[in-house]
Amino acid sequence: MGDVNSEFSAGPLDYYRKQASFDWRKMKEFIYSKEELNFLKNAHNKIKQYPEFLPPTTALSFDEERYRTYRQSAIARGHPGVLFDEDFFMYYDFAPSTQTRLAMTLTVFNGILGAFGDEDLQEIRKQSEQGKISGCFILTEIGHGTNVKGIRTRATYDKESDEFIIHTPDFEAAKAWGGGLGNAATHALFFAQLYVDGKNHGPHIFLAPIRHPDTLLPYPGVTVGDMGEKIGLNGVDNGFLIFNNYRVPRKYLVNKTGGVTSQGTYSTPFESPSQRFAASLLALSGARVGVIISSETLGGHAVTIAVRYSGVRRQFGPQDEEIPILEYQTQQYRLLPYLASVYVFKVFSRYLKGIFNEHVRIIKQGDIHDYISMLGIEIHVITSAAKPLYTWIMRDAIQSSREACGGHGYLKAAGIGNLRNDQDAALTYEGENWVLNQQTSNFLLKIWPSILEGTTLAFPVNSGDYLNDAINILNTFKFSANNFEELYRLDVILDTFKWLVCYLLKRTYDKRQELLQNGANKFDAGNNIQVFYAKRLSTAYIQHFILKKFEEKILSCLDTSLKTVLERILLLYGLFSLDKYLDVLYQGGFIAGDRPASLIQDGITEMCSRLKNDAVSLVDAIAAPDFVLNSVIGSSDGQVYHHLENALFSSPYGTERPTWWKDIVNWQNIASTPPNSKL
Amino acid sequence: MGDVNSEFSAGPLDYYRKQASFDWRKMKEFIYSKEELNFLKNAHNKIKQYPEFLPPTTALSFDEERYRTYRQSAIARGHPGVLFDEDFFMYYDFAPSTQTRLAMTLTVFNGILGAFGDEDLQEIRKQSEQGKISGCFILTEIGHGTNVKGIRTRATYDKESDEFIIHTPDFEAAKAWGGGLGNAATHALFFAQLYVDGKNHGPHIFLAPIRHPDTLLPYPGVTVGDMGEKIGLNGVDNGFLIFNNYRVPRKYLVNKTGGVTSQGTYSTPFESPSQRFAASLLALSGARVGVIISSETLGGHAVTIAVRYSGVRRQFGPQDEEIPILEYQTQQYRLLPYLASVYVFKVFSRYLKGIFNEHVRIIKQGDIHDYISMLGIEIHVITSAAKPLYTWIMRDAIQSSREACGGHGYLKAAGIGNLRNDQDAALTYEGENWVLNQQTSNFLLKIWPSILEGTTLAFPVNSGDYLNDAINILNTFKFSANNFEELYRLDVILDTFKWLVCYLLKRTYDKRQELLQNGANKFDAGNNIQVFYAKRLSTAYIQHFILKKFEEKILSCLDTSLKTVLERILLLYGLFSLDKYLDVLYQGGFIAGDRPASLIQDGITEMCSRLKNDAVSLVDAIAAPDFVLNSVIGSSDGQVYHHLENALFSSPYGTERPTWWKDIVNWQNIASTPPNSKL
Ligand SMILES: Cc1cc2nc3c(=O)[nH]c(=O)nc-3n(C[C@H](O)[C@H](O)[C@H](O)COP(=O)(O)OP(=O)(O)OC[C@H]3O[C@@H](n4cnc5c(N)ncnc54)[C@H](O)[C@@H]3O)c2cc1C
Ligand SMILES: Cc1cc2nc3c(=O)[nH]c(=O)nc-3n(C[C@H](O)[C@H](O)[C@H](O)COP(=O)(O)OP(=O)(O)OC[C@H]3O[C@@H](n4cnc5c(N)ncnc54)[C@H](O)[C@@H]3O)c2cc1C
Repeated sequence: MGDVNSEFSAGPLDYYRKQASFDWRKMKEFIYSKEELNFLKNAHNKIKQYPEFLPPTTALSFDEERYRTYRQSAIARGHPGVLFDEDFFMYYDFAPSTQTRLAMTLTVFNGILGAFGDEDLQEIRKQSEQGKISGCFILTEIGHGTNVKGIRTRATYDKESDEFIIHTPDFEAAKAWGGGLGNAATHALFFAQLYVDGKNHGPHIFLAPIRHPDTLLPYPGVTVGDMGEKIGLNGVDNGFLIFNNYRVPRKYLVNKTGGVTSQGTYSTPFESPSQRFAASLLALSGARVGVIISSETLGGHAVTIAVRYSGVRRQFGPQDEEIPILEYQTQQYRLLPYLASVYVFKVFSRYLKGIFNEHVRIIKQGDIHDYISMLGIEIHVITSAAKPLYTWIMRDAIQSSREACGGHGYLKAAGIGNLRNDQDAALTYEGENWVLNQQTSNFLLKIWPSILEGTTLAFPVNSGDYLNDAINILNTFKFSANNFEELYRLDVILDTFKWLVCYLLKRTYDKRQELLQNGANKFDAGNNIQVFYAKRLSTAYIQHFILKKFEEKILSCLDTSLKTVLERILLLYGLFSLDKYLDVLYQGGFIAGDRPASLIQDGITEMCSRLKNDAVSLVDAIAAPDFVLNSVIGSSDGQVYHHLENALFSSPYGTERPTWWKDIVNWQNIASTPPNSKL
Repeated sequence: MGDVNSEFSAGPLDYYRKQASFDWRKMKEFIYSKEELNFLKNAHNKIKQYPEFLPPTTALSFDEERYRTYRQSAIARGHPGVLFDEDFFMYYDFAPSTQTRLAMTLTVFNGILGAFGDEDLQEIRKQSEQGKISGCFILTEIGHGTNVKGIRTRATYDKESDEFIIHTPDFEAAKAWGGGLGNAATHALFFAQLYVDGKNHGPHIFLAPIRHPDTLLPYPGVTVGDMGEKIGLNGVDNGFLIFNNYRVPRKYLVNKTGGVTSQGTYSTPFESPSQRFAASLLALSGARVGVIISSETLGGHAVTIAVRYSGVRRQFGPQDEEIPILEYQTQQYRLLPYLASVYVFKVFSRYLKGIFNEHVRIIKQGDIHDYISMLGIEIHVITSAAKPLYTWIMRDAIQSSREACGGHGYLKAAGIGNLRNDQDAALTYEGENWVLNQQTSNFLLKIWPSILEGTTLAFPVNSGDYLNDAINILNTFKFSANNFEELYRLDVILDTFKWLVCYLLKRTYDKRQELLQNGANKFDAGNNIQVFYAKRLSTAYIQHFILKKFEEKILSCLDTSLKTVLERILLLYGLFSLDKYLDVLYQGGFIAGDRPASLIQDGITEMCSRLKNDAVSLVDAIAAPDFVLNSVIGSSDGQVYHHLENALFSSPYGTERPTWWKDIVNWQNIASTPPNSKL
């Protein structure tokens, strides 16, 4: 149960721990900042005092889980700085539902009011900060998610009363999915089409009081309810919201991107509606960074469980004695590339959060147009490709971990099933993965003609600098490795990714031109390049940048034992990622013949085997404390069978008969009773 | 709610239904046998009379789900021929837990007693058939799953009393996971190491009465309990079992593969212990066929839901009007290859079941050695590669369907989450996928030297006939398609797979030789060729055979409208499968240059677009009735929003406040209450 920084107890995992080539404590301090470690240490110390945060001893019903999350949120809010901290709670490695609730009801709600609301609305923000009211934010409608512009909730300005009339024309236009809305929100921020004098000015953000803070009863004209059971994150009260000609004062239009005077005159500081709309959406990337981080946290839990179990579980062996399954090539391949991904991702997301914070700082000092500055756009381009990549790889990490633990991994007590269920939402929210990827590829496609023309483009955080050299890269880069030694160099992998991005960009662009020339309209041409062109382009783009950032991180490392293992991690991740592009490499002539594919693939399994003795210590360095991880097969003491025994004997039935055992004995009674319902 | 064969109600899906190029009823009758359709029709008519089989109106607790499954099993057993039918209940498209329970407690338990038990044990089998006792079958122990030979439960023959003393040395040796064991089994069939006079004769199957049939209390010397909550299939009472020097009469050794006389003499009809062991394991492939079929059924449900939803859901469009998301290339790619897989798999598994039944018939007429006849081995080789392929592709089908439905797909009421949870077990049981694949590759590696020597090998069901021509294939086959027309020919795809199998077999074999020559021992050499060699080999082997069987099925089709769409299905499935081998094709020089990869990949998206107008009717032909599918977004009437509205308003909270709403208002009370527990 111990403290994050304490030693692990002696046991079956010692076999690998003793073989580790580095000190896991130093690794921990290298990967995480002191502030983050401190925050988590204090947070763990706090939550373990509260039964609400300890593993439940019996299965929770839907209502119990919801209530538990609610209590957790309340406790968190009661501990500002320790549990509730704007800057750090995205690093929670516990309580994903509570984390999501806090993010939506506080960071997002307060953040939007702070950024886009004028003075009038800051009072509401303060009340929210003080917990006097409770907010939520709803972009989505039942009928519209990805196509935000297509939403159908209306806000019509009524000059007479100086109010907006908010109306939901039908159920498809009901605002939907708002986190925090289902049971609790007193106030909603939401997008609606702004109508003034019969003219639609497009989606704008509005505020509405929806429930009385003392009774939680909805106001007349408001229908609000809960979305019901979900696959996971059931602690979060996602809700729906229907307005029936509901009136809010004019000041409840969150107006910094566009407002209406009492005379009914609309004005916006942006040149075009699409710029205005882009600015309000770009402001939402913060939540996306949160999703990225929590996804990598859940994936890290799964890999921790599976690596530890694989270090203890024995099956078969060359002689009589059985060997840990971590010794098998397949088991290594099923886990270690994901362990490497977690490491690489952790470093990159902390970098991403850094540049995001910097951007927010600039905006606060500057003006609203900074949202659509080149820095704002580059951050958006990076985040839009990183979020799908992270969430898909972590999805696979969790699934592979589950399978790698065999039958016992299918026990709820193994803890992997819940991780999968909770992480699953991340594939969809904050931008559905497939569509989000298009943001990145569309940007790249847009700049390609300039690159061809030789215009030098500036990338404020340098993610695409090499694109200025694209023609040269396409003409001259070739795969140069002939053996492991030459392959295991990061510049070889980085250069390969540079070539891949240039090649895929050119191909995607050309393919689209070809479709257009063959008569496709723009809409179709854009859609019909996605699967094998644009999507792979945007992934390659972010892969290169992620690898580069990890390389920089390694360069900052002064401890050679850490450095060696970090290099292996990077190489494994790099080769594992490259393997998915072998067809493109062959196709474009970057590689040829029998050797390169074998080299890369054998390089992956070889790198796995070089990392396997370090794997347990690598998860030790990122593992959540046992009471958080809450896995009978993944705890730090490695006492898998001991914990399994306890879990089985104390399971709901344990060794007892069910209360309805007589129905088992007399099954014929059931079988012969005629059905008591007819359809 | 209608009958399987009735029409669907008019609605939003008409748009696609009207465009279908074939009659879904004819397709249904072409894919399924009359007998199967009849069985399902009668089963649906029966179960819909029982509330136990109707969708629960509120979320079920663990105990309620277990009890519901128990009642379903009882009802099924009360309807022999209609619901409980040895030959057909593997086709259940409803109640996966009940299906699994019935398979384990009846088919497997009775099957083993019938096949391997002598006259003495047939009385027990009859009692089980009559439902007087309840069985289970347990190979697995807490500490041993895949390595069955490593199990540690002992059965020691005691000449004095003419009994076996069954003993579990420690918790790791507890029998584990037995389906039907947790709450109900009165009798267990299980593997234990047979000791006679201090000599271990290896794992044999034993029978033991474990609970009193009238009280369900365990007998002295027996500890039995439930495994507790699982990720899915919670209706199945998987259990564990511990023996404390528990005695059973000698006749409770299931002795057809090896027995002991009252004098304590051990004898077996097999030449070697490994042959004997192989025969008892081969007999278990029946359950594997069941897993294959139920996996493809669950995957089919998911694809049905997602395709229908995609036919109704609209998002964006070239003009003002939004288009169904099924029109998007990405959405097609995310669903249609899986839809094609379901079709191809359905045909193949019915073929597989046919040859399996034939084999059982031969054994019944012949003798026990027929288990290890070439036919038995070939069936095992096919099944061992097919089970991982099916279960992984269906896992991906379910996951992709879930994601393709966006946020609403994350609702429990969408019905995809449960499918994923239940199907997940199939990746592990009846042979963990990665290890099971080795059965196929090991066989192929074993025959390769004979092939090289020119020995002609006979494959009773012809799965590997072309291997006899391997050298020629490797030397002469090349990819010949230059355009879609030439690509869209099944022989091109089949030939490519033939080449792939030969090439991968040669490479895998050579790689192993290389490792051996470099000093690796046999164990390591065998393990270190798995990831990029042996596994891909066994998958390619089964892909070829599956494609071939579907081709044969198409040849038997007399209706040209069906034939056209079936050919597209086969081509899509074939190209989708080939895409995963592009690296190997380039590497081995089967393809070269820019064109082939593009042709294959563009061929996939092109084939998707040719199938999209048929997709809704294709799922109609395989869809379960709505009350079985139980999905608010996937029902046959396409009334997505109507069903969503009902579901949301009648969800657990609906528009009501939780009972604990005052705690939301007064959250500070919770926040400021000191924790009532200290760790
Ligand atoms: C747990 C959870 C919490 C959430 N919390 C909130 C919240 O607090 N506030 C909020 O506003 N929303 C919230 N959402 C909603 C979420 O933002 C949406 O689900 C998401 O934006 C996707 O929209 P959708 O569900 O309408 O899917 P759709 O947009 O309908 O997408 C369905 C499918 O169509 C595809 N598709 C759509 N357009 C295209 C295209 N142009 N090209 C190709 N394919 C396309 C998608 O890729 C997807 O496969 C939440 C969702 C979940 C699951
Ligand atoms: C829902 C459910 C129902 C079940 N019902 C039954 C039942 O009725 N009766 C019964 O007897 N059993 C049952 N089982 C148990 C099931 O058969 C086992 O879980 C399965 O055989 C795998 O064994 P294991 O769990 O011990 O995994 P292990 O064998 O411990 O495998 C763990 C990991 O090690 C890897 N591994 C093991 N050996 C090797 C190797 N040589 N090379 C490479 N990797 C290796 C595996 O691939 C896996 O990733 C059930 C399981 C489940 C989940």
